[in-house]
Amino acid sequence: MNLNDILELDKRDSLAYKRDQFVLADDLIYLDGNSLGALPISARDMAARIIEKQWGQDLIRSWNINHWIDLPIDVGEKIAPLLGAAPGQLICCDSISVNLFKLLATAMNMRRERRIVLSQQDNFPADLYMVQGLSQLCGSQSCEMKIVEESNIEAALDESVAVLMLTHVNYRSGRIHDMQGLTRLAHDKGILVIWDLAHSAGAVPLALDDWQVDFAVGCGYKYLNGGPGAPAFIYTAKRHQDQVRQPLSGWMGHRSPFSFEPEYRAATGMGQFLCGTPPIISMGVLAASLVVFEDVDMPVLREKSRRLGEIFLQLIEDDERLGELLLVSPAQSHDRGSQIAFSHPRAYAICQALIDHGVIADFRAPDVLRFGFAPLYLRYRDIWKSVQILSDIITSGRHENKKYSRQQKVT
Amino acid sequence: MNLNDILELDKRDSLAYKRDQFVLADDLIYLDGNSLGALPISARDMAARIIEKQWGQDLIRSWNINHWIDLPIDVGEKIAPLLGAAPGQLICCDSISVNLFKLLATAMNMRRERRIVLSQQDNFPADLYMVQGLSQLCGSQSCEMKIVEESNIEAALDESVAVLMLTHVNYRSGRIHDMQGLTRLAHDKGILVIWDLAHSAGAVPLALDDWQVDFAVGCGYKYLNGGPGAPAFIYTAKRHQDQVRQPLSGWMGHRSPFSFEPEYRAATGMGQFLCGTPPIISMGVLAASLVVFEDVDMPVLREKSRRLGEIFLQLIEDDERLGELLLVSPAQSHDRGSQIAFSHPRAYAICQALIDHGVIADFRAPDVLRFGFAPLYLRYRDIWKSVQILSDIITSGRHENKKYSRQQKVT
Repeated sequence: MNLNDILELDKRDSLAYKRDQFVLADDLIYLDGNSLGALPISARDMAARIIEKQWGQDLIRSWNINHWIDLPIDVGEKIAPLLGAAPGQLICCDSISVNLFKLLATAMNMRRERRIVLSQQDNFPADLYMVQGLSQLCGSQSCEMKIVEESNIEAALDESVAVLMLTHVNYRSGRIHDMQGLTRLAHDKGILVIWDLAHSAGAVPLALDDWQVDFAVGCGYKYLNGGPGAPAFIYTAKRHQDQVRQPLSGWMGHRSPFSFEPEYRAATGMGQFLCGTPPIISMGVLAASLVVFEDVDMPVLREKSRRLGEIFLQLIEDDERLGELLLVSPAQSHDRGSQIAFSHPRAYAICQALIDHGVIADFRAPDVLRFGFAPLYLRYRDIWKSVQILSDIITSGRHENKKYSRQQKVT
Repeated sequence: MNLNDILELDKRDSLAYKRDQFVLADDLIYLDGNSLGALPISARDMAARIIEKQWGQDLIRSWNINHWIDLPIDVGEKIAPLLGAAPGQLICCDSISVNLFKLLATAMNMRRERRIVLSQQDNFPADLYMVQGLSQLCGSQSCEMKIVEESNIEAALDESVAVLMLTHVNYRSGRIHDMQGLTRLAHDKGILVIWDLAHSAGAVPLALDDWQVDFAVGCGYKYLNGGPGAPAFIYTAKRHQDQVRQPLSGWMGHRSPFSFEPEYRAATGMGQFLCGTPPIISMGVLAASLVVFEDVDMPVLREKSRRLGEIFLQLIEDDERLGELLLVSPAQSHDRGSQIAFSHPRAYAICQALIDHGVIADFRAPDVLRFGFAPLYLRYRDIWKSVQILSDIITSGRHENKKYSRQQKVT
């Protein structure tokens, strides 16, 4: 594969026009859309409208006239088609962690005769922390976490397990779980399943309804491009919504919040997952970001995502100077989400050197270099150029410069 | 008191220059800053910077170079002086409701031998709902809510009570509790106290440290002008910080979030109250809003707030056509926060008619008309004019127009 082939791919890319819907410097190669999505122009414009017109002029009236009160449901419904979910099963609110707490409590309450939450050793740690928090609060007699290696998950699905909690696409390796198969195996044992879609939503086609998924959470700021710390979402299958009993019973989740009744009565449907007043600016920006997806066919997007990853990997494998990079991700693109990771003893320094040379990737402790491919705004030539720069850095030993040694708080 | 006296007060108002730091139409009389504060120019400008520069150009690097990672602590430290709190005791995160859940769990764990959370019948219902949620999750054997009339609070403080949870300024009447006195009485019985400062922060001088307050929460979008649904804050006295055990143990509250350890280890200090990734746009806007307070002397602000309320009440009492309005708030300004409420059988319609005539107040079910006085941007002549308009509406019966009958979802 040479540069001409690459340029030809760009020419034939049916999603190429999408890049113009984002604010992105032409010379920046952004391989971190899996951590923070780029800024859609629609989001930038909406931010100005929310601030200057809705807050600045309409003020408190905006709850009605600009429909702030409907935002959590509206944003949920905009995300639903990307997940293969019929209307009435999604809501946008709080963070993934807070939402996991609500779902864990709900699911444990639906399986009161059991007490085990099963998860995977290398799940995103934050998800495990939330189980630990619930367990410490309620006592291990009513909630206990059990974590196993990925290869032992199926064997561990037995009648002692109340809830299986997994992340669909692993945050480090990008490995994809068989959501449909694992959900079915869990259901066979009477186990409820909570899926974390942080690295799936907006990158991988999903069919939550068809796969009989019970519950899911996901975040707005990765492939959905909703802005830093954008609110998260919750999916709860229609069939479970009458059994929700979530402990963060704030006023926005009340059946009639503005009646100011002293007793909590949960709203029906997804509204009952709301807690406090939502961060309207962040949520309104996420709503506007989702406009970018309106004409996107998810299988087409997935196809480009796979192709970007395959070419990236092939270019690296073809370059013998990059032999020190050990592939951490699955070798086949159908087993991966929209990211590829390598381990390298100097991963941190390489990541810093890449950033200095206009290629933004990220580092995950202890030694992982992670590259994300957001198909809405990445070009094939970005992939080509990023491998060239990576090769130059490693060949020249530029990452050995001591200015790239570990110092920063966040990477 | 005539219009000349009023204009003279405006002339001598040492806070008059503050209004220019807000985006506010000259002809709008905004008496709802207690519900949603007006837009500071500093916030508008910061919103554009966060979106266009920090997100749009710096992207993921902003966590370091634009200090997003430090925002929760930075915002907390900016709020601290307004509350009479020394550094290291505040953090900005989540919503009031979510934060109350963290504090309730922490405080109940510190008083394991007791199980009662005492509160007040007409507390803001959302706060009561959070106790109900915790109680339902953990069982009434470990957490039970007891609510009493305001006049019975002191008598109910006995050794069965673990936690006293109160709102400093009542959301409806504006009545102020004696925070110092009640905290002392509670402590005498070994009771911990959680104060909700939603209607106090930025309006009423506070001395949390001097008054030996244990815990507090408050919100960013009322008198702090942080924008719709701005994140909330938590105060925890230094002396209790080693005993915090809060169940929403998300990754941002981990001692080393980017080590990705499978076991949760709480951060020291206020960091341990963080849960998921914070909504950076909303939080950054709140940070910028607080700049407005940097040169404000809280007692001076309180003095203006009281004066605005006193004049408003006097003008209403002097106008015999307004006799149908029954005062719900305390008659003396030192007993009230920065708001005054009246009951009226047609309160909803009057509120709508006022809005139509350029005076924004709010309605609280079932029959309360609530006026808030935000001293940073209200002029004495606004108060004068608002009473004239109110009087015109009621005298002319304009609120009887059926277009003002109840329809809206939020008021």
